[in-house]
Amino acid sequence: MAPTVEGGDAALLPEFPRGPLDAYRARASFSWKELALFTEGEDMLRFKKTIFSALENDPLFARSPGADLSLDRYRELNFLRCKRIFEYDFLSVEDMFKSPLKVPALIQCLGMYDSSLAAKYLLHTLVFGSAVYSSGSERHLTYIQKIFSMEIFGCFALTELSHGSNTKAIRTTAHYDPATKEFIIHSPDFEAAKFWVGNMGKTATHAVVFAKLHVPGDQCHGLHPFIVQIRDPKTLLPMPGVMVGDMGKKLGQNGLDNGFAMFHKVRVPRQSLLNRMGDVTPEGTYVSPFKQCRLLPYLAAAYALDHFSKSLFLDLVELQRGRASGDCSARQAELGREIHALASAGKPLASWTAQQGIQECREACGGHGYLAMNRLGVLRDDNDPNCTYEGDNNVLLQQTSNYLLGLLAHRVQDGACFRSPLKSVDFLDAYPSILDQKFEVSSVADCLDSAVALAAYKWLVCYLLRETYQKLNQEKRSGSSDFEARNNCQVSHGRPLALAFLELTVVQRFHEHVHQPCVPPSLRAVLGRLSALYALWSLSRHAALLYRGGYFSGEQAGEVLESAVLALCSQLKDDAVALVDVIAPPDFVLDSPIGRADGELYKNLWGAVLQESKVLERASWWPEFSVNKPVIGSLKSKL
Amino acid sequence: MAPTVEGGDAALLPEFPRGPLDAYRARASFSWKELALFTEGEDMLRFKKTIFSALENDPLFARSPGADLSLDRYRELNFLRCKRIFEYDFLSVEDMFKSPLKVPALIQCLGMYDSSLAAKYLLHTLVFGSAVYSSGSERHLTYIQKIFSMEIFGCFALTELSHGSNTKAIRTTAHYDPATKEFIIHSPDFEAAKFWVGNMGKTATHAVVFAKLHVPGDQCHGLHPFIVQIRDPKTLLPMPGVMVGDMGKKLGQNGLDNGFAMFHKVRVPRQSLLNRMGDVTPEGTYVSPFKQCRLLPYLAAAYALDHFSKSLFLDLVELQRGRASGDCSARQAELGREIHALASAGKPLASWTAQQGIQECREACGGHGYLAMNRLGVLRDDNDPNCTYEGDNNVLLQQTSNYLLGLLAHRVQDGACFRSPLKSVDFLDAYPSILDQKFEVSSVADCLDSAVALAAYKWLVCYLLRETYQKLNQEKRSGSSDFEARNNCQVSHGRPLALAFLELTVVQRFHEHVHQPCVPPSLRAVLGRLSALYALWSLSRHAALLYRGGYFSGEQAGEVLESAVLALCSQLKDDAVALVDVIAPPDFVLDSPIGRADGELYKNLWGAVLQESKVLERASWWPEFSVNKPVIGSLKSKL
Repeated sequence: MAPTVEGGDAALLPEFPRGPLDAYRARASFSWKELALFTEGEDMLRFKKTIFSALENDPLFARSPGADLSLDRYRELNFLRCKRIFEYDFLSVEDMFKSPLKVPALIQCLGMYDSSLAAKYLLHTLVFGSAVYSSGSERHLTYIQKIFSMEIFGCFALTELSHGSNTKAIRTTAHYDPATKEFIIHSPDFEAAKFWVGNMGKTATHAVVFAKLHVPGDQCHGLHPFIVQIRDPKTLLPMPGVMVGDMGKKLGQNGLDNGFAMFHKVRVPRQSLLNRMGDVTPEGTYVSPFKQCRLLPYLAAAYALDHFSKSLFLDLVELQRGRASGDCSARQAELGREIHALASAGKPLASWTAQQGIQECREACGGHGYLAMNRLGVLRDDNDPNCTYEGDNNVLLQQTSNYLLGLLAHRVQDGACFRSPLKSVDFLDAYPSILDQKFEVSSVADCLDSAVALAAYKWLVCYLLRETYQKLNQEKRSGSSDFEARNNCQVSHGRPLALAFLELTVVQRFHEHVHQPCVPPSLRAVLGRLSALYALWSLSRHAALLYRGGYFSGEQAGEVLESAVLALCSQLKDDAVALVDVIAPPDFVLDSPIGRADGELYKNLWGAVLQESKVLERASWWPEFSVNKPVIGSLKSKL
Repeated sequence: MAPTVEGGDAALLPEFPRGPLDAYRARASFSWKELALFTEGEDMLRFKKTIFSALENDPLFARSPGADLSLDRYRELNFLRCKRIFEYDFLSVEDMFKSPLKVPALIQCLGMYDSSLAAKYLLHTLVFGSAVYSSGSERHLTYIQKIFSMEIFGCFALTELSHGSNTKAIRTTAHYDPATKEFIIHSPDFEAAKFWVGNMGKTATHAVVFAKLHVPGDQCHGLHPFIVQIRDPKTLLPMPGVMVGDMGKKLGQNGLDNGFAMFHKVRVPRQSLLNRMGDVTPEGTYVSPFKQCRLLPYLAAAYALDHFSKSLFLDLVELQRGRASGDCSARQAELGREIHALASAGKPLASWTAQQGIQECREACGGHGYLAMNRLGVLRDDNDPNCTYEGDNNVLLQQTSNYLLGLLAHRVQDGACFRSPLKSVDFLDAYPSILDQKFEVSSVADCLDSAVALAAYKWLVCYLLRETYQKLNQEKRSGSSDFEARNNCQVSHGRPLALAFLELTVVQRFHEHVHQPCVPPSLRAVLGRLSALYALWSLSRHAALLYRGGYFSGEQAGEVLESAVLALCSQLKDDAVALVDVIAPPDFVLDSPIGRADGELYKNLWGAVLQESKVLERASWWPEFSVNKPVIGSLKSKL
């Protein structure tokens, strides 16, 4: 199919290099060039190509494979590249108005190259720039020219250390002094320090600062934005009364210098008030109970999975002892197969649960979770390989579903019983009658025990086993090989079967553990709740299948399950800290300022930020901003 | 409630430091010390405390806040710490047999401190050690003593560069030479290089190498493990015929030196065959069609969300033009509210979809996705802050659900119509009749158009809006404040409402886009499939709600939806590469060896690995292994 650009299309959309993908490309039902032209249009394709080619041909943008850039050097390089973007002047202010879609396209292209570069450029020109521009007053328009000539460098300072996204809780103040016609910008304490502000760490000379406006008589007029000079553009040293620094390493975007600032009675002229901006600030209404609610199921999972892994390890020790003593019995072989099936689904369940739990913690901590020193990134990165090594999780799950399918085939063909040394499959012997069962719990109160989830899980595993078996035979009848048939069934059937079977086993073992007679009476309630919460929360992720197979019917079933999870979270809320205390490693080992056992997260975080190297120091490359100014568009002729 | 340890419990489980968490701790329904004792037992608590205290008191394990360790230095430090663990000798081989649960406890404690340390220790002593031990021959038992005195250092070399987890595809060979009674270990080419092997990069002297065993006559006896010396313990230089190197930076666990090795006809004695190990190797049966299937929905999401973001940006430009021209009309204000509502749910949907898509790509690439040079880590880390900045995603979703609830309240109280400038809410006017609708598609073929998903989404949004509204009023009637009521409803109702509303809008806009008359006929099929796939895949995540509210009933509805998603993936399979070609940035910008447009991923990866600095070079700290040997247990007296 011929592309539709006349003439220069080969240059605009050149062929890809030949290679192993040729065969795949040849199979496409359409011409990729035609779709590219339809999606973007020729003008936009040219615009993007111009940007990409400029970067590729400019040594300043050379990729440095394998180089481990230091934080300092990466921030310098990102600043130099941002300056170079001004010299290329890919998109003039006039063009922005004429072809507005080129604005996100430019940001997107820079971001594909390096998101730190896109962020630095965007925050300065568009976020800081629009804040000033939309204030509308003539005086502020003179700033616009200085933004685009890089005489000043801007940032947008809304967030404070201790309030997160809730703009109602902002505590920086701006008191009006009628005598001098000035505002006095002030941070009452470190918890009100502006925090996380992109470009503020090393580069910005000016900030749009959000503060509570007070007029004489101490009447508060709510949050307003002010333009405040924070550094001298000639020297990049801080202005008197401004303590400004760099927040240090983050999990990503390290070319961007996020920073913090405290203001000590800094006076700014009356005209610094950007008075047409109030309507763009969203009001946060976020409260913490929701966060607990999002993390408590993972806390329950930690207890349940820890118990499972210990008990499975002891099963493995039994297996190895048998091996060492030369046991060649059928039971020993069966034990090996059962442990292999449980471990093959156990690693996926545990590594994915950890992955999701760490990410949920990271997001629940807001920006602070993104700061490298708080080490949620290390936990995430170090857990991540568990999802693929010694067998990709999806491969391993197939080992487990194959084990169950093998047992069912044996039963169907030879009438064998479901029996295994650890008894994890014995319940399947009753699968015909289990499949006749229905969810018959009608009140939340009846649901608050893991027995309800156990019954549902048994039904679910029987249902998925039958469905997978039928689907497999159907695939084989339609001519698939055994290998193909298994692979075709795996996504839709085998995978949920393996996970549900393992979750049932985890729930079953933890249920038995917490209902042992030896459990101290004072611990029975909390352990029972943990067991029920993990069980019902895990089960709730299979709600669609429970409905689909007819175990659930009617609105109430799903509502009861959901309400029971919320009720258990609410019951466990007051136990949450103590439950963490039981399993938490010492502070030295955890090594996370926001996670210390004393709970003084803001104090610890502030202390740790100030301990980092070169926090308050001027960047070594300051003359690149203060002296060597870019000549706007000077490289345009090279495009 | 008093803890039950006599005497020394204060030392074993000391009180936590006082602070803001005191109040939360006081609310617990149980004693954390009692639970810790019940969960772990006193002996295990003491064991863990011994390990943690030793690390905390040893300067070699001092945390270095803010320090950006170089890869070299981190690997050296991790090796030194591993050696130090032998000097502490926390767990003798005898103790391992007596209290097997202490083995995972030791690994867990080391892993809480640093997972690279746990991995290094585990791979040497337990993975390499068990492989040798379980071979059972007397000759191999002499290795065990050398492992625990660190005379040799071991690794476990199964994986090869190009085969992933599929052990059937391993191509390293071991030919038996009866003349010399030796095996000849050989890597046929770089794609058969052993790859990703932990400890192999800089430290290991010996490897358990898996190879296909050939005997004279070229009969292949399948995969077997061999013990092969790869470096001289006296110098840490490679043995003749062995090319061994370090893989470079990973997304995490950088204290562990993962490495690669190629063998050029390396002769090892007959006894090197570890002949009792075959039964522990799982056989992979994984094939790539499944991977495509897991990534295609994200490819469709990229197209649908890209179109949405462009169209919403143009709406924003319209709003700003109105503002600049002084438009103070009611329509202008309504437009602002609608855009705010769409953007507030758009950022969560897009950032979470990107997060999940990147993680899915990283796992689909197996270990190679974990190698830093392939840059999936950069994509993930740079996207991550999108989930929390300018409003945590969950806060923002509340803005959207509040917008919809406000419109419904207006309708209920004042009889106002649902009307908005961009028409995203207009369909809600018919909500009573929409709520009467049911899913009535009975064949997969009828489902392969986004119109089916659109109808289902309209029902879903109406259902969730009604449910949220009722739940909110119920909360208020039970005495909650407006603020509390909204927060209590948000998790279970408001959040899915906001996401479903935004997904509907994205699907609606993309559906209209791909069904325009101006779409070239040759692109209609592929764009229609992309639209349907994104729509049905997103919808399928709400299947439980569709059943719960009665839109779905019976087994068939869920099956049709699932089968339609799989059918669309299958239809789009051959178009996948071309669809990526359309939106992929140039190789220079993507900068990922496994992602280059020529598709030569193994060649590119191998080339890039060899380009990294000091790949084949001996570690500068080699005398720390070769000369300064640990005295096992020499620090035990300090515990």
